[in-house]
Amino acid sequence: MLSVIVNTMETLLKNKKYSSLRDVLSTMNEADIAAIFEQIQSERLPLLFRLLPKDLAADTFALMNTDNQELLIRGFSDNEIKEVFDELYVDDAANIVEEMPANVVKRILKNTDPEMRQMINEILKYPEDSAGSLMTTDYISLRPKMTVDDAIKRIRRTINEAETIYTCYITDENRKLLGYLSVKNLLLAQREDKICDIMDKTIVCVHTLDDKEDVAKDMNKYDFVTMPVVDDEGRLVGIVMFDDAIDVMQDEATEDIERMAAISPTEESYFKTSDIRHAKNRIVWLLILMLSAAITGAILTKYEAACSAVPLLVSFIPMLMSTGGNCGSQSSTMIIRGMSVDEIRLKDFFKVVFTELRISIIISIALSAVNGLRIWIMEGDLKIAAAVSISIVAIVIISQFIGCTLPMAAKRCKLDPAVMAAPLITTIVDAASILIYFSIATRFFVL
Amino acid sequence: MLSVIVNTMETLLKNKKYSSLRDVLSTMNEADIAAIFEQIQSERLPLLFRLLPKDLAADTFALMNTDNQELLIRGFSDNEIKEVFDELYVDDAANIVEEMPANVVKRILKNTDPEMRQMINEILKYPEDSAGSLMTTDYISLRPKMTVDDAIKRIRRTINEAETIYTCYITDENRKLLGYLSVKNLLLAQREDKICDIMDKTIVCVHTLDDKEDVAKDMNKYDFVTMPVVDDEGRLVGIVMFDDAIDVMQDEATEDIERMAAISPTEESYFKTSDIRHAKNRIVWLLILMLSAAITGAILTKYEAACSAVPLLVSFIPMLMSTGGNCGSQSSTMIIRGMSVDEIRLKDFFKVVFTELRISIIISIALSAVNGLRIWIMEGDLKIAAAVSISIVAIVIISQFIGCTLPMAAKRCKLDPAVMAAPLITTIVDAASILIYFSIATRFFVL
Repeated sequence: MLSVIVNTMETLLKNKKYSSLRDVLSTMNEADIAAIFEQIQSERLPLLFRLLPKDLAADTFALMNTDNQELLIRGFSDNEIKEVFDELYVDDAANIVEEMPANVVKRILKNTDPEMRQMINEILKYPEDSAGSLMTTDYISLRPKMTVDDAIKRIRRTINEAETIYTCYITDENRKLLGYLSVKNLLLAQREDKICDIMDKTIVCVHTLDDKEDVAKDMNKYDFVTMPVVDDEGRLVGIVMFDDAIDVMQDEATEDIERMAAISPTEESYFKTSDIRHAKNRIVWLLILMLSAAITGAILTKYEAACSAVPLLVSFIPMLMSTGGNCGSQSSTMIIRGMSVDEIRLKDFFKVVFTELRISIIISIALSAVNGLRIWIMEGDLKIAAAVSISIVAIVIISQFIGCTLPMAAKRCKLDPAVMAAPLITTIVDAASILIYFSIATRFFVL
Repeated sequence: MLSVIVNTMETLLKNKKYSSLRDVLSTMNEADIAAIFEQIQSERLPLLFRLLPKDLAADTFALMNTDNQELLIRGFSDNEIKEVFDELYVDDAANIVEEMPANVVKRILKNTDPEMRQMINEILKYPEDSAGSLMTTDYISLRPKMTVDDAIKRIRRTINEAETIYTCYITDENRKLLGYLSVKNLLLAQREDKICDIMDKTIVCVHTLDDKEDVAKDMNKYDFVTMPVVDDEGRLVGIVMFDDAIDVMQDEATEDIERMAAISPTEESYFKTSDIRHAKNRIVWLLILMLSAAITGAILTKYEAACSAVPLLVSFIPMLMSTGGNCGSQSSTMIIRGMSVDEIRLKDFFKVVFTELRISIIISIALSAVNGLRIWIMEGDLKIAAAVSISIVAIVIISQFIGCTLPMAAKRCKLDPAVMAAPLITTIVDAASILIYFSIATRFFVL
């Protein structure tokens, strides 16, 4: 469907049917327009963008990708920059400024009004991963002594600058946060009610320097549409919107997944990252894991004699190594994800270890039975079948133990547990598997 | 901190300081109370719960875990059940009913009022993963001919049953969805304005049977707090709230991560799942992968002669297998995650393959150089160093090719790409690595 729409638009543009185009665009949601603009030939973009009604243009602009934003800004007159940026919410504006090259940033800041410029700078001064960098300063604040009538008047006056009126925050003259009031309770109240009598005084807020991941988790826990952000003195400095929190949660999940595959996470999308950058993100762990795997190789050479005496032994190495690796990475994955969604905590250490132990006993018996039977039937060698089966039991149990303890140990040492995922666990478990296998096998064959 | 609060509460309870307890509880947010209740000894729970003010009690109840909910309901009088359930939002009530054993469900439905009972049944009839099962029927609907004044009156009248008033939906007499109006625009409008003149007619909605994952993605795309759900005739039947959409997104990420570690995903949390269930979720893939790894073992036996002739060759097997597996799983992870956040689409197939090819060339050269040097220096055998280095180049390139193509092939066949993640890729790549290594090595040593 997207390609049909893009085609229609390009044809309308070519035939200069501007008023029809404007009509079509006006019926659409800004997110859809931004998606369409990503597919449009970039030289047509400025003309198409200028056809959008003013406030739809700003909303669409905020949702476009960085390349298109830069392309448009470079083509804008000073006046157009002012028009678009004055319509933007300050957090979106700050995000855009953050992504632009220095000369474009200079033009933007020159052409926005002083108040907007100051707010953008306010947000940009916070560390990249903090609540402060995620927040918007476009919120509605009320005073405790206002009546509901005053409050509604104030809201109507400031509504156009506010990103949301879902929750209004009540502050004193020093901007100290006193409570909040949902627009629902505001509408339910009597016109002459005092705000301080109807506001909710249970204050849940985050600090400007809190990690944005924790902020997103808190918002999810409390089901908040907005979360107030306060400074050291408890003064309200901004609010975090739910949609930005969702993006943080998605990015964190991506980061976890990448780290669990031994890739250094980036903020860029797959196609925006250069080949060299991609290679760099992957190569460090590959080198570490490659060199560690050499240890497994060295262990293997120690058992050269056994391999030559009973050559069949060698053929079970891949199966044992892979089973150990898979069991270990299953356990570590469960624990890592459990910790990142706060289902598993450090104090659950022994509970986790015992759970994994019980699971590993069930799994190891099942796997060793299947495998023992297969070898006995296919190779007809009961001794080898027994040696491999016993090895599987030991390998599965130890692999799951390593798989569940290392991520928790990493967390204990304040490292990201995700580094203890499949690749590293597999490498450690590989060495362990070979050791276990040969020490059991050599007993069977008394070499 | 949690343990301090729990301790305080238990002591207050023991000393029968009920009014202080009620004061303390009243200052807290429902999510915090639910978290505290999870730590409280279960025999104290009913008493503590009864100390909560009525509406806070219902909100807290909705956030408690299933075990505590069941415990409380079993202790409730019929009247208490009615009180709690009549205060609940219908989607929360439906969720609770879904989780309870049959005899408890019967008591709940017997004691809720007929309207609530009908709405619960309405939601429960939709398939588990559909928008219909996720929605709430507690929304505010307005008629196009109402004035702003009428609308505000209607909102004030129905506000207590509505889960959100952030967006009001406008429907005709057949409940057909005509448009929406944010409470922000409602407050901005003049009292005598007609709703049909100020409402937004760009309708973005989902169908009752749409997959809930797609609904969550759409809500994220449009930054919606609520998403309207319509039936086949375009009639509004409910709305999905942003907080439920966030939970869906988190669950989907967990599912992806579990599937990528060869674990069959469950909805239950780690500690709520029985050992047998845990073992079952992991064992199917373990068996498949174990038996496939036997193929690699069979390939290995084919090269028995080479191994006995040049025993050093064996010691590089783990390193080559693990490097191939890691490269393959890095690629597959990038592609799987890229597809699940809609960054990579099927039509990008060739773009992805060429990107991975370029990346693999950079990585393979770096890895083979480091490794060749290491072997040359440590073993002093240039021939082996060359054979291993050339193998690494071939293995890395082929592994990344397999890693990026299989997930896309799975998607093309309408399978979940996540099944083509690390464990399966590793097993396939292991066999390929051994084949490549020995066909290169045998050329060097002319065996």
